[in-house]
Amino acid sequence: MNCGIAQALEAFGDWWSLLIIRDAFFGLTRFSQFERSLGIAKNILASRLEHLVDHGIFEKLDTGEAGRYSEYHLTAKGEALLTVLTALREWSDEWVFGRGKEPIFLTDRRTGKRIPRMKVRDANGREVSLRGIRAVPGPGADEETKERLSPRTSQAS
Amino acid sequence: MNCGIAQALEAFGDWWSLLIIRDAFFGLTRFSQFERSLGIAKNILASRLEHLVDHGIFEKLDTGEAGRYSEYHLTAKGEALLTVLTALREWSDEWVFGRGKEPIFLTDRRTGKRIPRMKVRDANGREVSLRGIRAVPGPGADEETKERLSPRTSQAS
Repeated sequence: MNCGIAQALEAFGDWWSLLIIRDAFFGLTRFSQFERSLGIAKNILASRLEHLVDHGIFEKLDTGEAGRYSEYHLTAKGEALLTVLTALREWSDEWVFGRGKEPIFLTDRRTGKRIPRMKVRDANGREVSLRGIRAVPGPGADEETKERLSPRTSQAS
Repeated sequence: MNCGIAQALEAFGDWWSLLIIRDAFFGLTRFSQFERSLGIAKNILASRLEHLVDHGIFEKLDTGEAGRYSEYHLTAKGEALLTVLTALREWSDEWVFGRGKEPIFLTDRRTGKRIPRMKVRDANGREVSLRGIRAVPGPGADEETKERLSPRTSQAS
């Protein structure tokens, strides 16, 4: 599909994957750690980790005596999902838990100050609203995407 | 679950939901428009839209003669998913399609300039790296979240 959202969802495989990736951001690396944290069946966890390794989000490293243990480490591609997980968490903080009930805050490791909410910003750093932006075909747009974004068929462009 | 990522995923219901929400950002409002755009079975689309209405992401409005048609409009809670969809799209642009092959660009409606990539930024607007941030329990943290984020059990905090 000629759509970044669909492609990202395909790369993750399913919901579980984002929780595995979340745990990896929290420092977990071992199969048994993910299993305990998520309460997930071994066969499901194994297939999700394999999917994520196949998609270059994790790399699997043999460690311990004679490679007895495996560790799963986020690649640069995996670490780049920080914006995705941050956007999901911040949306829930505002719309599900509500202010003052957030389970987790991100803080700046140097200053200890809270990291402010991530926003879509223009080239000058100003927040843009939904009405202030327009989606246009990029260099990789196929005919369907161009049709979808043409002013004739879409209210949003 | 005491986790914003899990809560957001529960609110969406499944993958399809994010593509329905994407289409709504592109201006689609009618059942038949979503059906045509996504090539999705009527019964699946109906249950996903119902789930999203139940979770306050869409509101359903009766329109046309004698309420003959229904329209689905994103609520403020739904429109706030712009950051989630933007993060997913930008991740795919960089890691799946690659630069110069992006299907869609967002532009500033006033200036026509491209909207730059969204980043996690500190209070001064500087981009923060994964190593520069720390996750700490928020006011709504339960015991499990506190345990997960305690320095003893987590490498990341």
